Amino acid sequence: MKIVILAHESLLSPGGKTARGVYFYSPHEIVGIIDRQFAGKDASEIFPGKRRVPIFASIWEIKKDFDALIIGTAPIGGKLPQEWREEIKETLYRGKMVISGLHDFLSEDEEFSKIAEKTGAKIWDVRKPPENLKVADGSGKGVNSVLVAGTDVVVGKMITAVELYREALRRGISAGFVATGQTGIMVGCDAGAVIDRIPGDFMAGVLEDMVKKVSEKKDIIFVEGQGDILHPAYSGVSLAILHGSYPRKIVLVHDPARKWHLDYPNFPLPSLERYIELYEKLAEPVSGGKVAAISLNGENLNKKEIDKVIEKIESELGLPTTDVLRYGAGKILDALL
Amino acid sequence: MKIVILAHESLLSPGGKTARGVYFYSPHEIVGIIDRQFAGKDASEIFPGKRRVPIFASIWEIKKDFDALIIGTAPIGGKLPQEWREEIKETLYRGKMVISGLHDFLSEDEEFSKIAEKTGAKIWDVRKPPENLKVADGSGKGVNSVLVAGTDVVVGKMITAVELYREALRRGISAGFVATGQTGIMVGCDAGAVIDRIPGDFMAGVLEDMVKKVSEKKDIIFVEGQGDILHPAYSGVSLAILHGSYPRKIVLVHDPARKWHLDYPNFPLPSLERYIELYEKLAEPVSGGKVAAISLNGENLNKKEIDKVIEKIESELGLPTTDVLRYGAGKILDALL
Repeated sequence: MKIVILAHESLLSPGGKTARGVYFYSPHEIVGIIDRQFAGKDASEIFPGKRRVPIFASIWEIKKDFDALIIGTAPIGGKLPQEWREEIKETLYRGKMVISGLHDFLSEDEEFSKIAEKTGAKIWDVRKPPENLKVADGSGKGVNSVLVAGTDVVVGKMITAVELYREALRRGISAGFVATGQTGIMVGCDAGAVIDRIPGDFMAGVLEDMVKKVSEKKDIIFVEGQGDILHPAYSGVSLAILHGSYPRKIVLVHDPARKWHLDYPNFPLPSLERYIELYEKLAEPVSGGKVAAISLNGENLNKKEIDKVIEKIESELGLPTTDVLRYGAGKILDALL
Repeated sequence: MKIVILAHESLLSPGGKTARGVYFYSPHEIVGIIDRQFAGKDASEIFPGKRRVPIFASIWEIKKDFDALIIGTAPIGGKLPQEWREEIKETLYRGKMVISGLHDFLSEDEEFSKIAEKTGAKIWDVRKPPENLKVADGSGKGVNSVLVAGTDVVVGKMITAVELYREALRRGISAGFVATGQTGIMVGCDAGAVIDRIPGDFMAGVLEDMVKKVSEKKDIIFVEGQGDILHPAYSGVSLAILHGSYPRKIVLVHDPARKWHLDYPNFPLPSLERYIELYEKLAEPVSGGKVAAISLNGENLNKKEIDKVIEKIESELGLPTTDVLRYGAGKILDALL
């Protein structure tokens, strides 16, 4: 499949994490990225070491054929700007698929669905909950799963989970990946559902179902976490994932440069130690999972700074710690096997 | 409004807690309860000290007029049994309202909605999420709210919250009640939404909106909790409510006779001390609420036994403790003011 990523003015902003995740990890060929802010550049100039993908100002400038347009970000306020609508319509007019992780389902938009009906184009709303919602019954207990949880949103949970999963595959381990957010689903997984879109009562149950199914075929599963258990808005989703994934081990993703929850300056980040304590105490009566390693997000620190943080955490907490994007996931995987 | 409660074979079972809640607390006149198991009796024979309400075997035996039928329980598996359908249809044929807290929306049932359209009957699906879903932005911080949380499901959170609210009103305090479940909404509240039915990302935000609105008019708000933070299926909902209600104080409802989570025998109940510790540590970075009192569910203990438990908890934990249904909510309210 050949894909295009729509990411106007967000390739470098927190809201563009879906675009970046797909760019970094999608197994598909990426024909282009649409972001008028960086039009004319190549994505590898912005993200050194990553694959070459040209950036365009609009969909009309892309001359190569493609199969699907991925909406790589959520506009502020959740409403689609008019210009985005035009680019989505253009995709549908061409009969190509639109893949969206927005809360507002594009397939329920009258204008979009009419065009899709005419041209045979498909609209895939990744966030749509599965049809069979169930309440967790405790039967997931005992699966061999690793939860990649975090101390905030947009901190690198999906990236850490995918890097661990791929490192395990490289070592010949029978590993599975369970995605809980749109980006994880878009880059490919053994099972996936956008947990934050599922009605509260069913969040843990939907995840329990997925980890059980993937466990039947794989020896170890990596589960992508969401949000964090002390986040003022998303803590409920995080805790449902902690309990519904029944982790034996937990990898905690942390940005040592962050002082408060992203976009919530009135809510300072509690200490890493407090997070470790609470994740373990909350997991204890359900799956007994312990924090086995720390994955640091080092994007705001230079090599010397991150190395110092790694050394400090390892000596003070005794937990294997690394910056996965700088040094790979091998050290953490060692701690999980 | 005159109401009838549909509660076949569940007036005394855990699943009938909506029926019991409405029977105990509804300000409306209750014309009858439908439960073939106890037909011919009066509800006050089963629940001594409560109001007189005749119990019938079916809707066709109720001769008095009524305005609304309340579905007082959820059938196992979530599917409506055929006979229930007939009783709901009969209500709609008579042009009367049907009030339901089921996950399956009756208003979306083709047969029901056709009848309702013909006769002008209303169907109120209490569990339908509000139209304007929002993500919590932290602006609820600072409201004067009390969260009534618990150590399990079906433990008496709604009852404790309503008893506290009514005791406060009796004392002339400007008090509000925010309901988070169908029964709380059905018995009357200042604001209410069934949080467990709301998509995960919006649970805390919907509650934040409600506590802010009610706070504008009331000096103190009592918020009904749901589930518990260590429950394998519902913990996510509980934590979203803990954070989204920004409690200054927490009342913890506990059944000292319970050994494991109701219907989850493989998940033993952690200690009351552990619950207090975790509720406080989770609340700390968001609203800083502390557990101020313990409300015991004494339905499985005699007076001597419950008095002993009360004394033990008070001396060991130093928290005001009582059995609200036996002794009223006054002692707990004193600890909150």
